[in-house]
Amino acid sequence: MMKKQFFKKVIPIAVLSTVLVASWSGAITNPSAQANEAELNNNAEIKNVIFLIGDGMGVSYTSAYRYLKDDPTTPIVEKTAFDNYLVGQQMTYPEDPEQTITDSASAATAMSAGVKTYNAAIAVDNDKSNVKTVLEAAKETGKSTGLIATSEITHATPAAFGAHNENRKNMDAIADDYYNELINGEHKIDVLLGGGKSNFERSDVNLTESFKKDGFSYVTTKDELLKDTNNQILGLFATGGLPKMIDRPDDIPSLEEMTTTAIDRLSKNDNGFFLMIEGSQIDWAGHDNDIVGAMSEMEDFEKAFNAAIEFAKKDKHTLVVATADHSTGGFSIGADGNYNWLTDTIKAAKRTPSFMADEIANGADVEKTLKSYIDQELLPLTEVEIESVKTAGEKASDINNAIKSIFDKRSYTGWTTGGHTGEDVPVYAFGPSKDRFAGLLDNTDHAQIIFNILDTDKSK
Amino acid sequence: MMKKQFFKKVIPIAVLSTVLVASWSGAITNPSAQANEAELNNNAEIKNVIFLIGDGMGVSYTSAYRYLKDDPTTPIVEKTAFDNYLVGQQMTYPEDPEQTITDSASAATAMSAGVKTYNAAIAVDNDKSNVKTVLEAAKETGKSTGLIATSEITHATPAAFGAHNENRKNMDAIADDYYNELINGEHKIDVLLGGGKSNFERSDVNLTESFKKDGFSYVTTKDELLKDTNNQILGLFATGGLPKMIDRPDDIPSLEEMTTTAIDRLSKNDNGFFLMIEGSQIDWAGHDNDIVGAMSEMEDFEKAFNAAIEFAKKDKHTLVVATADHSTGGFSIGADGNYNWLTDTIKAAKRTPSFMADEIANGADVEKTLKSYIDQELLPLTEVEIESVKTAGEKASDINNAIKSIFDKRSYTGWTTGGHTGEDVPVYAFGPSKDRFAGLLDNTDHAQIIFNILDTDKSK
Repeated sequence: MMKKQFFKKVIPIAVLSTVLVASWSGAITNPSAQANEAELNNNAEIKNVIFLIGDGMGVSYTSAYRYLKDDPTTPIVEKTAFDNYLVGQQMTYPEDPEQTITDSASAATAMSAGVKTYNAAIAVDNDKSNVKTVLEAAKETGKSTGLIATSEITHATPAAFGAHNENRKNMDAIADDYYNELINGEHKIDVLLGGGKSNFERSDVNLTESFKKDGFSYVTTKDELLKDTNNQILGLFATGGLPKMIDRPDDIPSLEEMTTTAIDRLSKNDNGFFLMIEGSQIDWAGHDNDIVGAMSEMEDFEKAFNAAIEFAKKDKHTLVVATADHSTGGFSIGADGNYNWLTDTIKAAKRTPSFMADEIANGADVEKTLKSYIDQELLPLTEVEIESVKTAGEKASDINNAIKSIFDKRSYTGWTTGGHTGEDVPVYAFGPSKDRFAGLLDNTDHAQIIFNILDTDKSK
Repeated sequence: MMKKQFFKKVIPIAVLSTVLVASWSGAITNPSAQANEAELNNNAEIKNVIFLIGDGMGVSYTSAYRYLKDDPTTPIVEKTAFDNYLVGQQMTYPEDPEQTITDSASAATAMSAGVKTYNAAIAVDNDKSNVKTVLEAAKETGKSTGLIATSEITHATPAAFGAHNENRKNMDAIADDYYNELINGEHKIDVLLGGGKSNFERSDVNLTESFKKDGFSYVTTKDELLKDTNNQILGLFATGGLPKMIDRPDDIPSLEEMTTTAIDRLSKNDNGFFLMIEGSQIDWAGHDNDIVGAMSEMEDFEKAFNAAIEFAKKDKHTLVVATADHSTGGFSIGADGNYNWLTDTIKAAKRTPSFMADEIANGADVEKTLKSYIDQELLPLTEVEIESVKTAGEKASDINNAIKSIFDKRSYTGWTTGGHTGEDVPVYAFGPSKDRFAGLLDNTDHAQIIFNILDTDKSK
């Protein structure tokens, strides 16, 4: 803040107009710059920060999703909800003694606390000391806070914003942190929505009961979520992670529904809020090398992003940042020498290969199952393809691999790994101070900028 | 230009100061934004445009190169010459009736002429009509012009700036265009530097003699290039493409040397210049799935980019834009489940696998060749690895594959294709109007913005 005032005083007028013209000249031909310029009028106070993480959402994923959603009747490829807000990229490398490619825990700690650390670390540094997170700093300033994920809400990414642990695997301890770690005598997270019931309702303790006693609503279905009006709410909609969007039954909310509910509750605080929203399973689909699941989860995440943007546009005091923690799977648009990526093949799927494989492993007829969940106009299956699933074996995982292979070969989708990859990932931003996220960031910069915005001394 | 003046008149002062504060507030914590802000003072007239294309240089390549060049004695990963100038990404899709992933000809036509077209098109549209390029528009306004490449100078990317042909394969006809197509009675390209002697010195015609008769210098070695002082110069340093940087003999200039020479000659024109520089063989290494060659060519390209930036910083009237036409090979940092990308393995190479394979195919001893060109401290070869090359067969291509496989497996490098991939690619910009390249561009936007800067009516 000091520096901003300093600039106001010392910049000569001649420089001011220079800056301006250079800036406005960009608005003439570049539509995204035009959007940017309109937003530059917005130097309003930032009350709310919505930070979205597409886990595993590298540039291949954001680009592929655009091609998947393209309207084939127009000559151009239509932009996604993300595209107009691209401001740059970020580096994702961890500070791990043995690994140069990050995991989700280390990357989330970088983004939540501004500290590079080892893989598996949940808001602890390389000495395993707790590091303060932007969610905690927001709570200290009197803001409301929320975490949303489609994984267990105790999974690495949300955990690194709301808990501290030397290992991401300790999801029960992470749930304990959510309940036990108080700030100014209050629970530090007001809205918790996602999966992971089993980490809260355990043989040793039932944290959902504890939260309820302290005034939280506890909901487990979409209807309960949408009907609830409490400002503090714990929503756990699955034992572990939620089903992927394309497989999701009606009683489980979408990421968008969780997002709009959370914003509705959190925005009642006049001091503002911090909300982290994770599209958790883009990454899970990437690990599984499942292009159908990956595109399903991109859509779930895009709709949540769009809901955040819509709120921010109306509110005018909300900064929205969306990025990824890393990319996953070595996914490529095009494979094996083909100069095509055939999206009809992917759009043919009505369920993930994993969903189909589970039904077949449980005794369902192979051909009937495939033809019921794969649109035969968009992807007419050959005898050889059906036979490849029939002969894949009894195990769901083998059947899943056989079905995924059909989608990969028909769409020309490539994969190199079941793990993460190290390339830079895109950064999107909207609202006041969005320019601070422009260019090439390190993943730690997100937390540093948000701490700065919150005007909070990290060491206090 | 009309529009810029319009803005100067109508923007109220209150808006001006609003824009300014929002913009400067970004400079406090984000180093790349700080660099940006310093440049925003530069709204000078643009005399010169230097457009650099890293062929095939997707985000995996720019990120990998940073990790390769990292100083391991510091906790952070040092930035490359590109990193501080990242302004966004661009979409690369062609408008091809049969392919959704672009080739270099279609992508270069999009960037040179602002027109989406079919794969293989050299500055012609889908009706095979010629489309005007930014190089031609620059020449029309009295600027000097240049093309530099490490491929044949008649290869797809440079060709789409300086020639017109329905098919990129017609490299002799493209060389003819370079000589025959005049603008205001003069040759339209003043500096042509690269490979491809065989397309100029042919049984039917010797274009190098023709160029010489018209006052051009003709040079074929680095010494000749560096000693020459003519403002119009044709330099052809190989029959086909140049050797990759890591394999290059002393008598062939680097991309940086070609760049500094070209800038020296072109900048003597008081009307300014347009120069296109291609790092052609990042893509070739990608097609070959050769990580050693890819990183070699990234270094060659980075040094040329840096030379362009250094000139632009001094000149203050030069816009520098660098981007890629597409990515190649489905290259991933990390493969097969490994959370590491081991750069020592790649830095061990003193020549490309292809170079080593050629020597072995010509009778050199396998073990001696490998150990002479692969640093045995950085990558100590196992008996099994040496045996894998010995048993690869007689053909250079098979031996090459065996050597590449060692580098891939030891470094954890992944590939999915011998062709191109469709993800968005990074865009870097420096100098006046650099903001016009910010955010998500389409590849055609580059030409549109440069045409606009040149204030040239495309239809005239």
